[in-house]
Amino acid sequence: MTTFPTLGILGGGQLGKMMAAEAVRLGIGVRLLSPKDAGPMQAYAHATTADWTDPDVLRDFATGCTAVTVESEWAPADQLAPVCPQDTALWPSPQTLGWIRHKGVQNDRLAARNLPLPAYRRCATRKAAHAAADELGWPLMLKQYEGSYDGYGNRLAKTPAELDDAWDDLAADDGLLVEQCIDFVRELAVQIARRPDGTSVAYPVVHTEQRNHRCHAVVAPAPIDAQLSENAQAVARNAVDAVEGVGLLAVELFETQDGAILVNEIAPRPHNTGHYTIEGCTTSQFENHVRAVLDLPLGSTDLVAPHAVMVNVLGQREGTPPHATGWRQALQVPGAHVHIYGKPEVRTHRKMGHVTALGNTATEARSRAEEAAKQIIL
Amino acid sequence: MTTFPTLGILGGGQLGKMMAAEAVRLGIGVRLLSPKDAGPMQAYAHATTADWTDPDVLRDFATGCTAVTVESEWAPADQLAPVCPQDTALWPSPQTLGWIRHKGVQNDRLAARNLPLPAYRRCATRKAAHAAADELGWPLMLKQYEGSYDGYGNRLAKTPAELDDAWDDLAADDGLLVEQCIDFVRELAVQIARRPDGTSVAYPVVHTEQRNHRCHAVVAPAPIDAQLSENAQAVARNAVDAVEGVGLLAVELFETQDGAILVNEIAPRPHNTGHYTIEGCTTSQFENHVRAVLDLPLGSTDLVAPHAVMVNVLGQREGTPPHATGWRQALQVPGAHVHIYGKPEVRTHRKMGHVTALGNTATEARSRAEEAAKQIIL
Repeated sequence: MTTFPTLGILGGGQLGKMMAAEAVRLGIGVRLLSPKDAGPMQAYAHATTADWTDPDVLRDFATGCTAVTVESEWAPADQLAPVCPQDTALWPSPQTLGWIRHKGVQNDRLAARNLPLPAYRRCATRKAAHAAADELGWPLMLKQYEGSYDGYGNRLAKTPAELDDAWDDLAADDGLLVEQCIDFVRELAVQIARRPDGTSVAYPVVHTEQRNHRCHAVVAPAPIDAQLSENAQAVARNAVDAVEGVGLLAVELFETQDGAILVNEIAPRPHNTGHYTIEGCTTSQFENHVRAVLDLPLGSTDLVAPHAVMVNVLGQREGTPPHATGWRQALQVPGAHVHIYGKPEVRTHRKMGHVTALGNTATEARSRAEEAAKQIIL
Repeated sequence: MTTFPTLGILGGGQLGKMMAAEAVRLGIGVRLLSPKDAGPMQAYAHATTADWTDPDVLRDFATGCTAVTVESEWAPADQLAPVCPQDTALWPSPQTLGWIRHKGVQNDRLAARNLPLPAYRRCATRKAAHAAADELGWPLMLKQYEGSYDGYGNRLAKTPAELDDAWDDLAADDGLLVEQCIDFVRELAVQIARRPDGTSVAYPVVHTEQRNHRCHAVVAPAPIDAQLSENAQAVARNAVDAVEGVGLLAVELFETQDGAILVNEIAPRPHNTGHYTIEGCTTSQFENHVRAVLDLPLGSTDLVAPHAVMVNVLGQREGTPPHATGWRQALQVPGAHVHIYGKPEVRTHRKMGHVTALGNTATEARSRAEEAAKQIIL
């Protein structure tokens, strides 16, 4: 007898919540595990808070799951793997997560597969970083190998003195990644859903707009020509193949001044740049993630409207619990799809929700999403 | 300080599940209460099984809710009303539910407000039913006042002998509703979302196709001209006004051979004929239900594609738990949105799920939805 599968999700934040929503609709059982009370998962029944580095906790959680997946590359997949029941799949694999977690390893893996990247050096010492500067030229982008996000852990250096300062602030025991700083035209992203057998589907190329090193808006499709778009999708697909990704992976890209596509970095999970797909595409990134890790057929990635724009709702204060100021006003904006994650604590710049709007023009979609998002003061 | 509202839902079936999904996305707290283990609600955290006729259970449930709503006109709103905390709204009102639950009262209410209805008589005795037949002519539709659905409790009578048989089988202490049998062109339906202040929005008119007295498919928009469509929406809006409905109500209509619109019946809640709105409209019937009962601004009811078709997935056997036979195959159909409700027991003809597909033509949407739905054997 064929029965409905059960999906375990290591993580209880907004990504786990949005995965769970799609799984529940499809009839799939859902379990969530988080080391602390992550608010978004609280909406669901089988959400557990426990020490997720404990092998017994992990084994119990995985037992009975058809597959276990992660909300983040930092979830304890390595600890789960040795205690995971034989009939429970674990995707993405710990190997994929290992390749992606460390930016030096990630770049080496992609470079070995001939993926186009900004020129980079893995620098173990300050001296090596200065030598890299001589080779790569100024300015440089210095990146911590692990744990950097939203501008934290990255630093632009325009001079040897700035490089020294960055080194002092950021370098870990194994140094830093030193990259050529790309004077890009746009930052782009592509979501790829890939099954265990390697078959994959690509989402439209989107334009990700940053403000203060954080994603402010995502515009789908990106305003680029068909050839560049095909190139970006091909690069993204090859990058996901290179890390043997299974599930939904997001590939962040640079469009250079001379029309080349370079890989910035890979996220081995549904990503903020793909939230627009919930209303904007026939199958959302979360549904295709669920399908891929359970080895089910992948759904269509077609846009359902000519344009879709997603705008993030970031925290504007420190505190608890979130106010709902302006939320009612946001619901007044025609066509605005409001998502509030349910985090119990607000922090400045923390992702608290997002708004997506569709439109016949990018301007129409954008003005609706911006109008609604700016009302919400959490 | 404005905080996010909490919605209580009396009922834990698929309608409660789909309401909860929208509320959770919007950041609204959700509680569900059901007298027995209704499977669909099990996905959510705050789902309680208890004797929902117990005033203490109801008071505890409602305390802290911004509003309580019902999944069905048979939920214990009458019992909740006297123990409901003052700052908790209860929508639809027990009065609205009372007007709708009893088909004789419903018809009288609508007729008093000049809504177009099939000619009918409330017949307390067999003799009165024969007298009604003399006035209305044959054939007749006999309906139980309360509890009839999907063909159960209704009977077509073409002769006095069939009327006698139907009376013997169906009549309750207060008799039966005897209606002129409408030789309709189509059965139509319109969803209306209405706020406590009486402002409302209407969804597109849909064509509901029955097989064996059960809804097989819903086609949006119905293949009717603009004037008939406007008329149907106006009748539906007036019918909902007549019963002072708050929340999402579905109005089932007949399109007669001479192009008139008659009200068949009202459902005071989201309805199977509106499931297509989840993917087919900018704001689903469930989201607008949640918005209306919480007195929030209503969302756009625009279709997001030229056509949408919903096909029901009915149980084909008696048993537990549901098999997932064909479910994987259904996911292979491009553009098919698969919904499985998660009911723990299958029964023949029971609604176990549905599939919606969008398309540039009705044929395209229909073939996708039918193709996926027919794969699933639960």
